[in-house]
Amino acid sequence: MMPNTAPILVLDSGLGGLTVVRALQKVLPREEIIYFGDTARLPYGSKTAETVTTFVRQIIQYAQPLHPKHVVIACNTATALALTTLRPMFPHLTISGVIEPGARAAVEAAGAVEQPVIGVIATEATVHSKAYDRAILRRRNRARVLLRPTPLLVPLIEEGRPADDPVVKLALKQYLGPLMRRNMDVLVLGCTHYPILKDLIQQIVGENVRVIDSAERCADDVARRLAGANLLRPVPSVATGSSADSVAMDALDSVEPDLRCFVTDNAPRFRTLATRFLGVEVAEPELVSPDDLYAQPALVAPVRQAG
Amino acid sequence: MMPNTAPILVLDSGLGGLTVVRALQKVLPREEIIYFGDTARLPYGSKTAETVTTFVRQIIQYAQPLHPKHVVIACNTATALALTTLRPMFPHLTISGVIEPGARAAVEAAGAVEQPVIGVIATEATVHSKAYDRAILRRRNRARVLLRPTPLLVPLIEEGRPADDPVVKLALKQYLGPLMRRNMDVLVLGCTHYPILKDLIQQIVGENVRVIDSAERCADDVARRLAGANLLRPVPSVATGSSADSVAMDALDSVEPDLRCFVTDNAPRFRTLATRFLGVEVAEPELVSPDDLYAQPALVAPVRQAG
Repeated sequence: MMPNTAPILVLDSGLGGLTVVRALQKVLPREEIIYFGDTARLPYGSKTAETVTTFVRQIIQYAQPLHPKHVVIACNTATALALTTLRPMFPHLTISGVIEPGARAAVEAAGAVEQPVIGVIATEATVHSKAYDRAILRRRNRARVLLRPTPLLVPLIEEGRPADDPVVKLALKQYLGPLMRRNMDVLVLGCTHYPILKDLIQQIVGENVRVIDSAERCADDVARRLAGANLLRPVPSVATGSSADSVAMDALDSVEPDLRCFVTDNAPRFRTLATRFLGVEVAEPELVSPDDLYAQPALVAPVRQAG
Repeated sequence: MMPNTAPILVLDSGLGGLTVVRALQKVLPREEIIYFGDTARLPYGSKTAETVTTFVRQIIQYAQPLHPKHVVIACNTATALALTTLRPMFPHLTISGVIEPGARAAVEAAGAVEQPVIGVIATEATVHSKAYDRAILRRRNRARVLLRPTPLLVPLIEEGRPADDPVVKLALKQYLGPLMRRNMDVLVLGCTHYPILKDLIQQIVGENVRVIDSAERCADDVARRLAGANLLRPVPSVATGSSADSVAMDALDSVEPDLRCFVTDNAPRFRTLATRFLGVEVAEPELVSPDDLYAQPALVAPVRQAG
């Protein structure tokens, strides 16, 4: 049986998944998180399903000895292209992604609108996969889903430009303009990098558009899943004293977010940007060579038996 | 002995090296070119020397059975980070890059100016390697070299935006402004993607700045090397007729550029963009799995004997 003290594995092509880590640390401050950023092979957003599935499969295999209690694919592209193929390859693991929680939140945010217009901005690969269209229309078949690939946003964010940079603003206005002219009700940030620009995006689309942060929704979904499986880390037991309650509160307040990072390239660069992303000092990540990832045996999903 | 009919291997992280192919086809229209684009692992510009050296070493090893007469690293980042390490690993091969020819051309273009100001725009990794500084200062130690990382240009070009796109213009003006205020005499396009934007860049910096296209200079350098080694493909012999000269001219005119492409991911996407880059229809490239690249034995450079 899986111990509830086991870590949560969060993986992404690079830095973007740290927005999910930030959200997880907020809702589940006691959990230990293992983060894997595939910086030698990023970005995933312009690559094919086969290639991205191989990359993510290798990462999950590599992390097996750490015995994660849950795996979060904190990347919309990898969720769209690889999640369904990967689940049967790892039957003993629970794996979740960012798209279903984002789609669910978008439909909820549309509320009572008869034919809500739901915009989604995402990478090229996520848009072409049609994963968001399907996830939204399954829940609200009268919704109109407008997808827009926004390939420049990841490089703009990875370059570390401030949100008031004129190139960032111009690119966002170009990308969002056509969606705004179609009177969208809800806009899904369909890439875990994009929440970094959330305030600016909200400002451009205006208050009448509900902006959905797929990273936050993904973290809420993980919390629900772990609670449902009785796998949340327990509150640390404290010595009984004159005021047990206040001691417990102190223990809770003093919890340090427990984060261990692995990357496939350029650990110092990751550390600098991760510290900026998370707003707290991050230790230098451990470096994993892509050679070691390729040295693992190939896995294929078992063929389903008929009947 | 190497036959002069052997192909030239041109490699890059993705599409950028096609500007070198275009320049090679112009100066050496009879040569057969093998192009290898590492589209599963692009871009190289934000990655470390160790990782990029592994990637390029794998590609050269993989292409060995095609017996190239020369290898061109048509990528400034890979030239900066890997060329010196790779040469001793392949002692039977001649390997050239884009930086030395670009630096030589920049110094020539500076002409008689006493203390020429030479700007270089390139990826983050190329700038940090200091390869351009060294190559320019070795030739003109009184030059002032201004390096500027321009990480957004590759994604802008790979997105297929037209040169009159306002985001492209604004990003270029931001990047080039500080160089222009320092009164540069010469600007080197230190990434093989950038020649796609050459006209716009020339327009922004004005006529007084000489813009050096490292892709063109690299192709000239390859032509010189092959001529020097007597490895240029011979003019096809033609049957003697009433006017041998005119027949030979016809044969020359009818030469089809001979190009065979390999990529590690998304062959159809490469084909579409390559056709746009080269301005002629390109056949769908052959797909090479990164698994096959990693399946090759590791190579290390021989240790040099003292004395």
